[in-house]
Amino acid sequence: MLYITKILDFSATHRLFNPELSDEENFEIYDKCSNLNGHGHNYKLEVTVAGIPGETTGYVMDLKVLKQLITDVIIDKVDHKNLNMDVDFLTGVIPTCENLCIAFWNELVPKITTGKLHRIRLFETDTSFVDYYGKKN
Amino acid sequence: MLYITKILDFSATHRLFNPELSDEENFEIYDKCSNLNGHGHNYKLEVTVAGIPGETTGYVMDLKVLKQLITDVIIDKVDHKNLNMDVDFLTGVIPTCENLCIAFWNELVPKITTGKLHRIRLFETDTSFVDYYGKKN
Amino acid sequence: MLYITKILDFSATHRLFNPELSDEENFEIYDKCSNLNGHGHNYKLEVTVAGIPGETTGYVMDLKVLKQLITDVIIDKVDHKNLNMDVDFLTGVIPTCENLCIAFWNELVPKITTGKLHRIRLFETDTSFVDYYGKKN
Amino acid sequence: MLYITKILDFSATHRLFNPELSDEENFEIYDKCSNLNGHGHNYKLEVTVAGIPGETTGYVMDLKVLKQLITDVIIDKVDHKNLNMDVDFLTGVIPTCENLCIAFWNELVPKITTGKLHRIRLFETDTSFVDYYGKKN
Amino acid sequence: MLYITKILDFSATHRLFNPELSDEENFEIYDKCSNLNGHGHNYKLEVTVAGIPGETTGYVMDLKVLKQLITDVIIDKVDHKNLNMDVDFLTGVIPTCENLCIAFWNELVPKITTGKLHRIRLFETDTSFVDYYGKKN
Amino acid sequence: MLYITKILDFSATHRLFNPELSDEENFEIYDKCSNLNGHGHNYKLEVTVAGIPGETTGYVMDLKVLKQLITDVIIDKVDHKNLNMDVDFLTGVIPTCENLCIAFWNELVPKITTGKLHRIRLFETDTSFVDYYGKKN
Repeated sequence: MLYITKILDFSATHRLFNPELSDEENFEIYDKCSNLNGHGHNYKLEVTVAGIPGETTGYVMDLKVLKQLITDVIIDKVDHKNLNMDVDFLTGVIPTCENLCIAFWNELVPKITTGKLHRIRLFETDTSFVDYYGKKN
Repeated sequence: MLYITKILDFSATHRLFNPELSDEENFEIYDKCSNLNGHGHNYKLEVTVAGIPGETTGYVMDLKVLKQLITDVIIDKVDHKNLNMDVDFLTGVIPTCENLCIAFWNELVPKITTGKLHRIRLFETDTSFVDYYGKKN
Repeated sequence: MLYITKILDFSATHRLFNPELSDEENFEIYDKCSNLNGHGHNYKLEVTVAGIPGETTGYVMDLKVLKQLITDVIIDKVDHKNLNMDVDFLTGVIPTCENLCIAFWNELVPKITTGKLHRIRLFETDTSFVDYYGKKN
Repeated sequence: MLYITKILDFSATHRLFNPELSDEENFEIYDKCSNLNGHGHNYKLEVTVAGIPGETTGYVMDLKVLKQLITDVIIDKVDHKNLNMDVDFLTGVIPTCENLCIAFWNELVPKITTGKLHRIRLFETDTSFVDYYGKKN
Repeated sequence: MLYITKILDFSATHRLFNPELSDEENFEIYDKCSNLNGHGHNYKLEVTVAGIPGETTGYVMDLKVLKQLITDVIIDKVDHKNLNMDVDFLTGVIPTCENLCIAFWNELVPKITTGKLHRIRLFETDTSFVDYYGKKN
Repeated sequence: MLYITKILDFSATHRLFNPELSDEENFEIYDKCSNLNGHGHNYKLEVTVAGIPGETTGYVMDLKVLKQLITDVIIDKVDHKNLNMDVDFLTGVIPTCENLCIAFWNELVPKITTGKLHRIRLFETDTSFVDYYGKKN
């Protein structure tokens, strides 16, 4: 088994708040991350696929194909967007880094047919990131 | 003359649009950067001060003092904020990376009394940045 | 289960030597790392906590809280310090990167009450690092 | 158990093609990576060794020794070389990142006698890498 | 005056040799960089344009436009190519980092019509780069 | 004129204090940087040489030769050392980043005979650096 990883960036705005709570309660939980007019990040997304290299190709999966797939399924929908308002598959989701990882996993997992989706890693800043390995892990 | 530089980060949202133009004209100029609900970045700000090291200290200026100054004058006002709506010294400014450099220079220059402000460099992403050396340059 | 990671820096001096050995024996084992007057590093510390995001918050643990905890328990005690002489919880420890990981784990593990400490990663330089997952692993 | 990692660079040229296929078939599989006159990369190689720190030394293995070993066994044979033509242990291997990881593992595993080789990670570019943990994993 | 910079990558192979010299003389000058079958790099190209931001746009030049221009004029011709054999504007040029900077400058300078080309910076590796400011500087 | 730059690292300990002042006065000026038992850094040193590429070689100066020169003149004397106690050319120098730049310039300038030393840049941490262009600038 080998693990191949592609890294892509996107820039988005978000505001952390739970609509079932008051603004005061949201500020108590999320502090400056709940700023009413939002704030933003250059997110760095790492997608890892596990598999056996093909005998003819020596590839688990062509990284250019993986890059295109991540671009179509995730990046084109979130880049230069507002994660609270503009992304269909994030409707009703509080866009914490944890919840974004789970949502990206759920979008990608049915599209990975060569090998198996192994890990989503998402950097919100250069010093903060989250890993998700799917439900069983 | 020596040049000392301190680097700090902040995360903010912005939308590029000129309020004197229609949405269509704004999209023609700014494309995805004019997304109605904004987008965001982890900005990296580099501030350079030129000066002669003091004989007693060997410092042009204590970098911890420079860090505190940049934090007070810039970072605390822009971090986790919306650059179109939340920052007093950006009222009426289209928040392109160029205009942010000029605005940050104007805020910092009266506060640098040891040595002389030499350059503002602002990274909007890891692959895009702008430099400003003040009006005379 | 999700894994959240916070990265922090500190700058410290150390000298590698085993006090039960002679200077010659120490130089044979540690070479230039045993320089009598010490040497130093900008260490980069990554702390990973595993857990389930809260339903109300969408957080495993607020990364700002984790940052403050690591700062209080580790960074404030080792930053701009001599690891052989200035740190109470390192008394009698040869400050190799391996031993620092174990010591940091032991300091942090009783303080992580939301989720579970999963990994300590410590970079001594940009090209050398050590991982520790606790005693059972 | 602790895991120590050393990171080293090398610069090499390669062309992806399967000699049993025609040029057309190779271009269909490898696209621009099959350019007839080759292309190249600054590869970044991470080697991880797992072990228990020695009581006298506090080291799993001296990272300077690990660095020298990787240099002798891998780097000196691939740096500033053509991976299709110049490297004895790559004869007959399509030099995909996956196959390079397996080949490097096979060269290194008999030479690691303190601790146990745990992982080979190879970056082909800043945004693409492959991990290999040996045959059993 | 403001200075805007866009950074792009490309991967290429090259061999340093002067065709007017013997292989021995080339090895004496270029050492391992003259390996007969070539070697390669992930080059990082930084292009800086100087100008005054437009009053309507707040841009010296749209960085997305600059990116597309560099891609068309340089990247598409050198990425995944052999710099000694595949690039029309490098015919007869010894592809040292210095000569590549001059060649890239000469290709780009007539195409930059908004603002003025200010600097070409080319990283050959993470620890080696060359700057060129054009003939007058 | 072209400008070539080589980047090298070293790890060292230092304590900032002026021996003509009391410990209290030193702490007032240098704060935690004056910790009695020292602290340390992984310094990153960038050396830039300006010149015209040779017609035969296409090189301002072979970067491998520049690397060896910096290693001999600077790195071997400061790496894994105490900058207050172990380095002959730093005797009597308060090892601020500014003073280190001047001292390194003075050591290197007589040894650069191909081209002309243009700039010393020294990073003390990832977010703090100093530039020096020699006495006339």
